[in-house]
Amino acid sequence: MTEQRTAWQLDPDRALPAEPGVRALAREIYASTAALPIVSMHGHVDVDLLVQDEPFANPAEMFVIPDHYLVRMLVSQGESPAALGIPTQDGSPYETDPREVWRRFCRNWKLFRGTPTRYWLEHELAVVFEAPAPPSEETADGLYDFLLDRLARDESRPRALLDRFNVELLATTDSAASGLAGHRKLAEQEGRQRILPTFRPDDLLHIRRPGWAADVRRLSEVSGIEAGDYDSFLLALRQRRAAFLQAGARATDHGHLSASAEPLDPADARSIFAAALRGESDAAAAEAFAGGMLYEMARMSAEDGLVMQLHPGVLRNHSSAVRSRYGTDKGFDIPVRVEFTRALQPLLNSFGMDPGFRMIVFTTDETVYSRELAPLAGAYPALRLGAPWWFLDSPEQMRRFRESAVETAGFYNTSGFVDDTRALASIPARHDLARRIDAGFLARLVAEGRLAAAEAVETGIDLAYNLPLQSYAPRP
Amino acid sequence: MTEQRTAWQLDPDRALPAEPGVRALAREIYASTAALPIVSMHGHVDVDLLVQDEPFANPAEMFVIPDHYLVRMLVSQGESPAALGIPTQDGSPYETDPREVWRRFCRNWKLFRGTPTRYWLEHELAVVFEAPAPPSEETADGLYDFLLDRLARDESRPRALLDRFNVELLATTDSAASGLAGHRKLAEQEGRQRILPTFRPDDLLHIRRPGWAADVRRLSEVSGIEAGDYDSFLLALRQRRAAFLQAGARATDHGHLSASAEPLDPADARSIFAAALRGESDAAAAEAFAGGMLYEMARMSAEDGLVMQLHPGVLRNHSSAVRSRYGTDKGFDIPVRVEFTRALQPLLNSFGMDPGFRMIVFTTDETVYSRELAPLAGAYPALRLGAPWWFLDSPEQMRRFRESAVETAGFYNTSGFVDDTRALASIPARHDLARRIDAGFLARLVAEGRLAAAEAVETGIDLAYNLPLQSYAPRP
Amino acid sequence: MTEQRTAWQLDPDRALPAEPGVRALAREIYASTAALPIVSMHGHVDVDLLVQDEPFANPAEMFVIPDHYLVRMLVSQGESPAALGIPTQDGSPYETDPREVWRRFCRNWKLFRGTPTRYWLEHELAVVFEAPAPPSEETADGLYDFLLDRLARDESRPRALLDRFNVELLATTDSAASGLAGHRKLAEQEGRQRILPTFRPDDLLHIRRPGWAADVRRLSEVSGIEAGDYDSFLLALRQRRAAFLQAGARATDHGHLSASAEPLDPADARSIFAAALRGESDAAAAEAFAGGMLYEMARMSAEDGLVMQLHPGVLRNHSSAVRSRYGTDKGFDIPVRVEFTRALQPLLNSFGMDPGFRMIVFTTDETVYSRELAPLAGAYPALRLGAPWWFLDSPEQMRRFRESAVETAGFYNTSGFVDDTRALASIPARHDLARRIDAGFLARLVAEGRLAAAEAVETGIDLAYNLPLQSYAPRP
Repeated sequence: MTEQRTAWQLDPDRALPAEPGVRALAREIYASTAALPIVSMHGHVDVDLLVQDEPFANPAEMFVIPDHYLVRMLVSQGESPAALGIPTQDGSPYETDPREVWRRFCRNWKLFRGTPTRYWLEHELAVVFEAPAPPSEETADGLYDFLLDRLARDESRPRALLDRFNVELLATTDSAASGLAGHRKLAEQEGRQRILPTFRPDDLLHIRRPGWAADVRRLSEVSGIEAGDYDSFLLALRQRRAAFLQAGARATDHGHLSASAEPLDPADARSIFAAALRGESDAAAAEAFAGGMLYEMARMSAEDGLVMQLHPGVLRNHSSAVRSRYGTDKGFDIPVRVEFTRALQPLLNSFGMDPGFRMIVFTTDETVYSRELAPLAGAYPALRLGAPWWFLDSPEQMRRFRESAVETAGFYNTSGFVDDTRALASIPARHDLARRIDAGFLARLVAEGRLAAAEAVETGIDLAYNLPLQSYAPRP
Repeated sequence: MTEQRTAWQLDPDRALPAEPGVRALAREIYASTAALPIVSMHGHVDVDLLVQDEPFANPAEMFVIPDHYLVRMLVSQGESPAALGIPTQDGSPYETDPREVWRRFCRNWKLFRGTPTRYWLEHELAVVFEAPAPPSEETADGLYDFLLDRLARDESRPRALLDRFNVELLATTDSAASGLAGHRKLAEQEGRQRILPTFRPDDLLHIRRPGWAADVRRLSEVSGIEAGDYDSFLLALRQRRAAFLQAGARATDHGHLSASAEPLDPADARSIFAAALRGESDAAAAEAFAGGMLYEMARMSAEDGLVMQLHPGVLRNHSSAVRSRYGTDKGFDIPVRVEFTRALQPLLNSFGMDPGFRMIVFTTDETVYSRELAPLAGAYPALRLGAPWWFLDSPEQMRRFRESAVETAGFYNTSGFVDDTRALASIPARHDLARRIDAGFLARLVAEGRLAAAEAVETGIDLAYNLPLQSYAPRP
Repeated sequence: MTEQRTAWQLDPDRALPAEPGVRALAREIYASTAALPIVSMHGHVDVDLLVQDEPFANPAEMFVIPDHYLVRMLVSQGESPAALGIPTQDGSPYETDPREVWRRFCRNWKLFRGTPTRYWLEHELAVVFEAPAPPSEETADGLYDFLLDRLARDESRPRALLDRFNVELLATTDSAASGLAGHRKLAEQEGRQRILPTFRPDDLLHIRRPGWAADVRRLSEVSGIEAGDYDSFLLALRQRRAAFLQAGARATDHGHLSASAEPLDPADARSIFAAALRGESDAAAAEAFAGGMLYEMARMSAEDGLVMQLHPGVLRNHSSAVRSRYGTDKGFDIPVRVEFTRALQPLLNSFGMDPGFRMIVFTTDETVYSRELAPLAGAYPALRLGAPWWFLDSPEQMRRFRESAVETAGFYNTSGFVDDTRALASIPARHDLARRIDAGFLARLVAEGRLAAAEAVETGIDLAYNLPLQSYAPRP
């Protein structure tokens, strides 16, 4: 059990099953998928980053500060977000020396043992940027200088990275009120539609959110339709959906707290909307409106063909102290239990058999795979079960997802792999990991006489490449 | 990784663990259980099929049309039920050429990869009927002709299959209002009680079900007791239970939505029943009545010794469109979360320590095994934890069931294997698969020094044969 | 597959993974942890047992009668508690011949196959007491005599066992109203603080519990503060916490039904407390008070540095028949679903970022690891995720705990191993088992290229020894 790593070489068999017979099969399946292009249909890379295409400033701003997975792990062991370079919103001081932030991260490398963050960072550092050694107190400064040099090179600019990563399609996430100027520029610059917008109307559908009225005004401006009442609000949303479609969008994205999608009587919707514009709304009305709008979004998807993505079940900003000092998306979004079978019944009853409708459902609650989502996706043609998402985008969870969902839903009612990252450099790491885990699962089926080897190879290719393309294909 | 299958030979080690050491142990355990007789105490084979004992008409009507597991998978990928030969109830056309239905199925064989349907069908086709090759677009017609010939043979008649399968006991599921004529005929024809009825009163216990009043009338007729009020309704149910017992029944079967079994004040029960007969009942009364009746069924089981089976937690007919066009049992029954600890407390408090009472609980929600059902079955002598059922009757789920339940409930508070099929030819496939999975689990315990090899063999035999017999033995 | 055991030698590789490559790695990791001292911070060994330090009377009173895990398994298969020597509280007869109780246990040895009880007992009998053979009908009397002799030896007295087990720290569980006389005596006898009290105020925080008022009176007496109203009640609790701290306590322990920790308006708390003293309280008030007091306990922990342990979700005394005949803690405590994300939000919002506060949360519901507890522990610095507890303290569950929690929480936001036993002789068995399972999990990470071997060894040592010490270290 001696360490054999002299330079920083990752194990070529990493994340494949340990048993030699299964590993040999897994290697063959992985060999057929490793080099496939990347189709990344659910990402959160900032479109402006791609438009500007500037080099990343330094390792701290590339790997540490914007990654709330990573930051919260250091915070959970006693580092303050401020000491990690997270800007404060209350004027209190925070670390502005990126080298200092980087050192803090490197010192704490052991905290990431056994986590996907560790796995992705190893891939990013060792494979993408060819760093010489893992982070540690000793290597921190050397690594910083090494990466500073690498990040400054043209080959490390955002779009050059996409080329190197063999990204065939990359979806961003865009506010429904976005004018899509960035995407227009990108299409011009690139001369093709490689980077696509995704229609995310969450902000507009939650009437008690601070800033909702301002967002409705922005929607009016961008759409050219004065959203002064519920009916014109729906019209304005349709206008934006059409604009997104024209800009190449294939999907919408919905992050509600529950999966409720109960249609709302239009008269009720009108009065709730009007009251909300007057600043009058209670929690019950807001919840009913959000559920009703989810149903309306399904109706519009059935009409215009945008694939509807739903990922409920995360309670955002669990710590009000962290939120008020550092803002949102700081690692304090915590899952809650979600119910799907009853919540989605009205929506699926209306649109679930409609060949023009496609819905992909994600969850952070692994208990619903076998009980609810696989049976639903294994029945309704409109429904596909999304890849393990957020906290579940990890080796053990991806394995358990297959072990829990495939027997009831089959492989072909799952979406194929989608990542969920804002960290551009982690995209190939995430796809590579998914391909390895799926290869391992398929290899076990072969080793246990449950699948022929040729079928396993074909299925591996489908999961890595064909299914994401098909799942997000524009509907007829 | 070349395909070595020249004829269609299934892997003799299929579904055994891949690791060679564990596999060797599993093979020895499986060798001790593979040939044991089949005790099938929770099936849904139609009794008339066995009485008439006619040859199966063709492969589509044997393997495809009546199997709602299989049909819903094809539907989930865009086939319409009508195109698969499912008769419509609204007069719209449906495919009536069985060869065409069979082709559709064969073309879509890949959809079943990784599912138990695939596993069972391979066994049925390759082992039971010795088909020459797996289904595919190319083999569809040849297979059809081959199977048509096989199905026409005397050895393929329903009861000849039971002989070939070494079925020692087969329970059917029968309405509580059934006159049991089929079972009487069968007992005469067979000269022994190999095929037993099971008392299923669900229809009579849910007062808001369409047709409830008619079912009560039928109960009155069959029992000879006019069920005009609650007390005579209970008497009529007791009469039927006695008749079932006389016909060899060992168990009752209850498919409620929740596990609630709260006793109802007799005065309340009387007035709810009377109102229901007048066509007046609300959802709350119906739920209270169903829960109260479950408690009464336990009381009767404690008296007459029929083993009480409960499997809650499935929301039936999720799609109203599918239901209205094609009827019930079309693959759109979707599980919901179920609570057992509190729901069963009144029932177990009254009867859980009673040596004359036996209850077997099934679930489609795997999360309750370790949290609720194993602790309950590991305490109350009356309670046994049923085998993984319905969606959970699959390799991964059977493995996880053992991994989740045995540590707290032990092996001997589980029911042993029961299948849950209406597809007669799948019975040996299902029992064989369960024996393989249990052999694999036991082999791992031996390999990890947690069980002696001889104990593993004995336990394997108990799970496959002795425990189902004991669990459903008439109570003293 | 022949049995190779001639004397009763346990497999030295037991509970390590079966795959030879992974096993070899696991052996190396386990070799580094096997001999580490035991830090047992959450036990329930009776302090008087240690003060008196008398030999155990006989095998039945050592291994069978006080172990409600074991007793309930025999009961679940039809033995009566009375026949197992459990004293009745209603005057009905019970077995008083310990040899007869021991025989009943030995006859039923097969019921424990696959359970942790079996695993621990094998370790206790074969390793701790060097028994010659496993229990069985044939060996029962010989074993009884053998153990009777062993238990009478000085080396088998309670504190001699602690020495032999290499116990560095052992926490007991003590009523908040305890005068801690036993602990004072022990500290004198031992001349060091090896055995520490734990502050458990449950009885005082649940106002509808029979005996609550008497317990409040006892609190007044012991603390010297007349707890006649809510404010003096809080003062008296603070006094006891200070006394526990002085006696070496490091932690409090809270066994509420839910995880709710909603602060209560002091005015409401005062009136609920006053009403409760008058014998007037309803269920809603009692629940609100319990939740409010949990919040107050967190506030006090943030002040005095006692580590707060919470383990909700067990419905005690499920069978009223068993309770009324045999009393509490007889194996009929059954888990229920628990929600943590919302329930703990007020408490974590107030104290979760406080470096002076430490909370360790345990669960008997494995579904909350990945969904709720790992995300919470992976964010809040105050929170650590406790080791698998009670029903979950078992090989499969410990493995699944790592597979479910580590990817999101990391290793270092878990508490390290704590046992939860009242059976003194099982302590080394439990710690040894945990070290083996963790070694196996770490070995797999190494074999799959996800962790370096040296990191795995270091992590194994941290989980077995350093993390329990750190997690329960007095807060600054």
